[in-house]
Amino acid sequence: MEHRKLRAGIVGGGRGAFIGTVHRIAATLDNEAELVAGALSSDPEKAEVSAKDWYLKRSYASFEDMAKKEKMLPDGIDFVMIATPNHMHYPVIRAFAEQGIHVVCDKPLAFTVEEAEEIGKLVEKKKIVFALTHNYTGYPLVREARDMARSGKLGGIRKVIVEYLQDWLSSPIEKEGQKQASWRTDPAKAGISCCVGDIGTHGENLLEYITGIKIKSVCADLTTFVLGRPLEDDANILLRLENGGKGFLTCSQIATGEENNLCIRIYGTKASIEWHQQEPNNLIIKYPSAPMQVMRTNRSQACKEALTLCRIPAGHPEGYLEAFCNIYRNAIADIKALKANKPLARDYPSVHDGIRGMKFVAKCVESSTKGAIWTDL
Amino acid sequence: MEHRKLRAGIVGGGRGAFIGTVHRIAATLDNEAELVAGALSSDPEKAEVSAKDWYLKRSYASFEDMAKKEKMLPDGIDFVMIATPNHMHYPVIRAFAEQGIHVVCDKPLAFTVEEAEEIGKLVEKKKIVFALTHNYTGYPLVREARDMARSGKLGGIRKVIVEYLQDWLSSPIEKEGQKQASWRTDPAKAGISCCVGDIGTHGENLLEYITGIKIKSVCADLTTFVLGRPLEDDANILLRLENGGKGFLTCSQIATGEENNLCIRIYGTKASIEWHQQEPNNLIIKYPSAPMQVMRTNRSQACKEALTLCRIPAGHPEGYLEAFCNIYRNAIADIKALKANKPLARDYPSVHDGIRGMKFVAKCVESSTKGAIWTDL
Amino acid sequence: MEHRKLRAGIVGGGRGAFIGTVHRIAATLDNEAELVAGALSSDPEKAEVSAKDWYLKRSYASFEDMAKKEKMLPDGIDFVMIATPNHMHYPVIRAFAEQGIHVVCDKPLAFTVEEAEEIGKLVEKKKIVFALTHNYTGYPLVREARDMARSGKLGGIRKVIVEYLQDWLSSPIEKEGQKQASWRTDPAKAGISCCVGDIGTHGENLLEYITGIKIKSVCADLTTFVLGRPLEDDANILLRLENGGKGFLTCSQIATGEENNLCIRIYGTKASIEWHQQEPNNLIIKYPSAPMQVMRTNRSQACKEALTLCRIPAGHPEGYLEAFCNIYRNAIADIKALKANKPLARDYPSVHDGIRGMKFVAKCVESSTKGAIWTDL
Amino acid sequence: MEHRKLRAGIVGGGRGAFIGTVHRIAATLDNEAELVAGALSSDPEKAEVSAKDWYLKRSYASFEDMAKKEKMLPDGIDFVMIATPNHMHYPVIRAFAEQGIHVVCDKPLAFTVEEAEEIGKLVEKKKIVFALTHNYTGYPLVREARDMARSGKLGGIRKVIVEYLQDWLSSPIEKEGQKQASWRTDPAKAGISCCVGDIGTHGENLLEYITGIKIKSVCADLTTFVLGRPLEDDANILLRLENGGKGFLTCSQIATGEENNLCIRIYGTKASIEWHQQEPNNLIIKYPSAPMQVMRTNRSQACKEALTLCRIPAGHPEGYLEAFCNIYRNAIADIKALKANKPLARDYPSVHDGIRGMKFVAKCVESSTKGAIWTDL
Repeated sequence: MEHRKLRAGIVGGGRGAFIGTVHRIAATLDNEAELVAGALSSDPEKAEVSAKDWYLKRSYASFEDMAKKEKMLPDGIDFVMIATPNHMHYPVIRAFAEQGIHVVCDKPLAFTVEEAEEIGKLVEKKKIVFALTHNYTGYPLVREARDMARSGKLGGIRKVIVEYLQDWLSSPIEKEGQKQASWRTDPAKAGISCCVGDIGTHGENLLEYITGIKIKSVCADLTTFVLGRPLEDDANILLRLENGGKGFLTCSQIATGEENNLCIRIYGTKASIEWHQQEPNNLIIKYPSAPMQVMRTNRSQACKEALTLCRIPAGHPEGYLEAFCNIYRNAIADIKALKANKPLARDYPSVHDGIRGMKFVAKCVESSTKGAIWTDL
Repeated sequence: MEHRKLRAGIVGGGRGAFIGTVHRIAATLDNEAELVAGALSSDPEKAEVSAKDWYLKRSYASFEDMAKKEKMLPDGIDFVMIATPNHMHYPVIRAFAEQGIHVVCDKPLAFTVEEAEEIGKLVEKKKIVFALTHNYTGYPLVREARDMARSGKLGGIRKVIVEYLQDWLSSPIEKEGQKQASWRTDPAKAGISCCVGDIGTHGENLLEYITGIKIKSVCADLTTFVLGRPLEDDANILLRLENGGKGFLTCSQIATGEENNLCIRIYGTKASIEWHQQEPNNLIIKYPSAPMQVMRTNRSQACKEALTLCRIPAGHPEGYLEAFCNIYRNAIADIKALKANKPLARDYPSVHDGIRGMKFVAKCVESSTKGAIWTDL
Repeated sequence: MEHRKLRAGIVGGGRGAFIGTVHRIAATLDNEAELVAGALSSDPEKAEVSAKDWYLKRSYASFEDMAKKEKMLPDGIDFVMIATPNHMHYPVIRAFAEQGIHVVCDKPLAFTVEEAEEIGKLVEKKKIVFALTHNYTGYPLVREARDMARSGKLGGIRKVIVEYLQDWLSSPIEKEGQKQASWRTDPAKAGISCCVGDIGTHGENLLEYITGIKIKSVCADLTTFVLGRPLEDDANILLRLENGGKGFLTCSQIATGEENNLCIRIYGTKASIEWHQQEPNNLIIKYPSAPMQVMRTNRSQACKEALTLCRIPAGHPEGYLEAFCNIYRNAIADIKALKANKPLARDYPSVHDGIRGMKFVAKCVESSTKGAIWTDL
Repeated sequence: MEHRKLRAGIVGGGRGAFIGTVHRIAATLDNEAELVAGALSSDPEKAEVSAKDWYLKRSYASFEDMAKKEKMLPDGIDFVMIATPNHMHYPVIRAFAEQGIHVVCDKPLAFTVEEAEEIGKLVEKKKIVFALTHNYTGYPLVREARDMARSGKLGGIRKVIVEYLQDWLSSPIEKEGQKQASWRTDPAKAGISCCVGDIGTHGENLLEYITGIKIKSVCADLTTFVLGRPLEDDANILLRLENGGKGFLTCSQIATGEENNLCIRIYGTKASIEWHQQEPNNLIIKYPSAPMQVMRTNRSQACKEALTLCRIPAGHPEGYLEAFCNIYRNAIADIKALKANKPLARDYPSVHDGIRGMKFVAKCVESSTKGAIWTDL
């Protein structure tokens, strides 16, 4: 492959979108990709002005059009970023994957488990690079946590506590036209779940990502606190793990005063770890008979995988955007490797993680619908 | 009543006991009571040397003996402190209550729900002051939390998260003769539960104490992680509250690296609060659209009830012993009031809280035994 | 000596006094001493009612009278606690010391350096136990810090930062009759310094106590921010240490929003430590190439001297009163040892620490008066 | 001006440089500028490979050459970023300023006060936009702090404590060829100061930026702890402010275990604030008689200037790179405004801040050299 930045396109992310901007920054921050094309909105006029805001070379009114045309261009895009609501993941992925264009897609993977599984087959068939932005796995200290858990430093895992608490849906802002809230609480766009699908899956993914242990069954109590909302805005979920461990996952969008409070605690027989997304540069490690430790981002003691995801010296806080970028960093490296016929590292959340997440959501909804009873994954 | 300190006796608390010393300090720290008599151990020799360690005027080999004789003395004890294992609460309470001697008893109230209810009747019949040392309610900022929740400052309570995590039973230390561990894990002395009975009840009590809302039903998953232990050492419990709120309570004695990590978070429609027993002089208050606040012990903004439980200026940390003492402070004030025919304030955990706690434990065990299914309290 | 509690008397501490109550609790919390006599106020009526509040057996209108009479009693006091304003330390110490009665005295030791040195000679001559309540040295983790610094675990000490920040004198409350403020800001009662004498000395003492290194010279900039106040309410002080290390001590009584924020950081070539009085159960240890550690009170890793000063398991916070009590614990043990002709441990702040503190205050005032120039101690 | 991204060039920042990468990311993160040209190293070969690493269109072997040629190009750069060692600021600024090319330069502004003042004149004469990357002013909550201090919410400022502690120069790594350490400790490249010039100035700038109050005089004790190092690696500095306030600034590069611990505390008569660079999304506000508050980045209560510098919802941590980018964001906006003949906002550190910083360094060195005596700025 010639020496150049990769060329990226984006679907979704028009004016007013939060996550589109995040994808744009994350894809380009390391200077290994440039954004050249987009279908930024289903509203053609909005697509146009949004593309101009971002100085895109090529703007499309439809993603189908974009997929086909970009494929034909000599300087067409190498990969597409998908930042649309949930119901628009599957068709967009399909359109680009069928052209052999690599994909980085927002989570959850799809609208239904069935769609997710079809995507799985398609990705495999097309042999494209596919990354799902379970972005919290991009934090260096989450990598460190994974290394500790999987290398046995924690001993056997007995207990896991995962929390993801927000308050942005505490009142019915979807009725006031807030864009995010409107589609997140709309079953036609979000699917069968609001809170678990949006943030609970991040917790599930983080738990399995770090420990390498699968959730065996759930007992999920989903609640809609805001009157008239068709999907749940809160969930408390008991977990049983495949290794015999027990756990708990709570997620909420009505937890007054909470911002984006994702936290995971893992208790092993030898040591325990605790990590808070809002203070992501600390990893707390507790021992039975040694002082508690606080490992810090980019301090020399971390594992190699954690250190390679850091950009600046310890004490210069790296945050959400940098972690999100780390998903892109590894995906872009794999696209380059593929083009150069080199082996892939595949060190980013995959389509299989996406299918797993969809099943988790489906089983939680099923458990809750039946009265919060134990349900196997 | 003449101007004098109250006279206290103690049952339990012999050499090597942790909680006996706590009761002694708590009862006398405010200088309104003195410890004069005790039946400190069921082992007469140990009772004797322990009483000497504490410079007690009168030492008894049996609590029955003590109850009867103290009753007859002109300078007999005004109240008894009970710091024995769970199975020895009921008989001791009965012995002293029947003599009309006031009682301050460690929790849980009794060995079974039936015993607990009998104690309830006895206390009522005998018209004695009875305080149960759910000591965490003695922290000034827990009072402040109660004031906030009950006065409506939090709005409607939607979600509650209670945790009580320890690690002292992570390995089978009961087999090495550790005194505490031996009886806590022994069904003959501790009852049907180890972890929920010992610390889970503190969480339940704190939740109902602060919010004034009762737990309606539980779905409890109890686990014994340490092989061969006959009682559970960990529990994850889903909660449904009487007001429609939801919650979660987790307690553990095998959470490696945790010391005495009791924490409660209460999410209301107007505001939320968070309190950690290990940093008890901070009460975190979160709002939807105002900065987070940290209220501090004995800083002037607290409610009157919180302020009257403080001894020293803000910034001079008060801890566990002072909070424990606050239970005694209010109980002693009531004993004095009773002697003076004045109205009682009854501002300490009561026999009814004790019965409630026993039911909570029983229902959690029942739920878990049936496979972790929903069970009404 | 017979098996009994020691008998204590107190001078000062009448109604409304803060530190008198602290001394009472601290002296008796461990159950090795009882308070039997007092001269609680220079106002005889107030002395009487205060003594009754505390159920004292014997109340005196004058401390001279108390010293003489207690000496003659068969059950007279073993030691006296002095909780009077600064100008009343020297005469009270002298009165009791001359009777051979042991002394636990509040800091600063005296009103002037000269007085302090006389006390030093008197204590030596009378061979009494003398403890100065530089109470912050009583925290277990301060002992741990001392052990780390003195055993070489920190390497060579290069830099020290000590802060003691309060806000209680931010406005002229002495004009509104606040008792503490009135004498603290009155040169006739407090001496030549308010802020440095009251709290700066605690910082100086802590620094030398932990490191074992003496302050060689100071450059002190003292300020009176509240108009009309005759003594300083804030100070910034550069330090040069005898070992070539450098440092800084700041103390303030006008630092809005600060409660009792005493904090010390010590930077060595091998490791550094940080301790905050308001969260006294954490000792932070930082390394060049290992994760930061947080040592916790009564967790097994601490040194023996730290562990013996703990009463309750890790995670049950011990605070200011318990630390204050630890000074008494060791002083009482020494008084008992002396009575039993056993060797003394002398593990509490001494008259020499007191003299050192008086010199520090004097030199800071001298430095500042001359324009904040370097002044040797 | 046509609708396009601004074109940027960079001097310095070749392979192995830390701050060059930071400038690149910061300049382009908001998608309003692209990096097209550079003179990345004084070593032509290294310049060439470094430019290729970054996919630059044009690489130059000398900055003089770059300045002249870019000026002549139809698509020449709009502004230059300067990321060279201190001695190479002045000549580079001059080269580009004389071509009328806008400048964003790393701090300190120059090698000497004289150079700095010349730059001041040149910038004024050439009417270019000039921004100095005192990047810590780019944090949203630093803006909020400024708003609070300057709008009178803190009342009169009485006391200021500024700290900037690092440990990267704890041992003589300059002797092992560490690039940064080599020039920072070399008077020929760094100037008269290492620690104060590198990080002390950030503290000075932050203090004056937030409060709007100038430092009147300093008493600075500079120390070289690492043997053989020609410049200081630690400093303790007493401050007197123009408004009568007092303060203290400490900076260190040998504070074992510290990463990039920049912290500022400002005590006013009405309220106080505290901000830590390592947890930059919290601004602590303390009041005399209201609970402490913690303001959070991008939570709605902040001032408009703070909110416009946030990219992502509260709880998604923004860090060092985003703050650094905010300097560029405002500078780029001004360059665009200038091209469009619109008024400039000038909301970034200026050449005057740079001159001020140079004077501060010079006066600290002068004070210390004379024995740490008071020296007016």
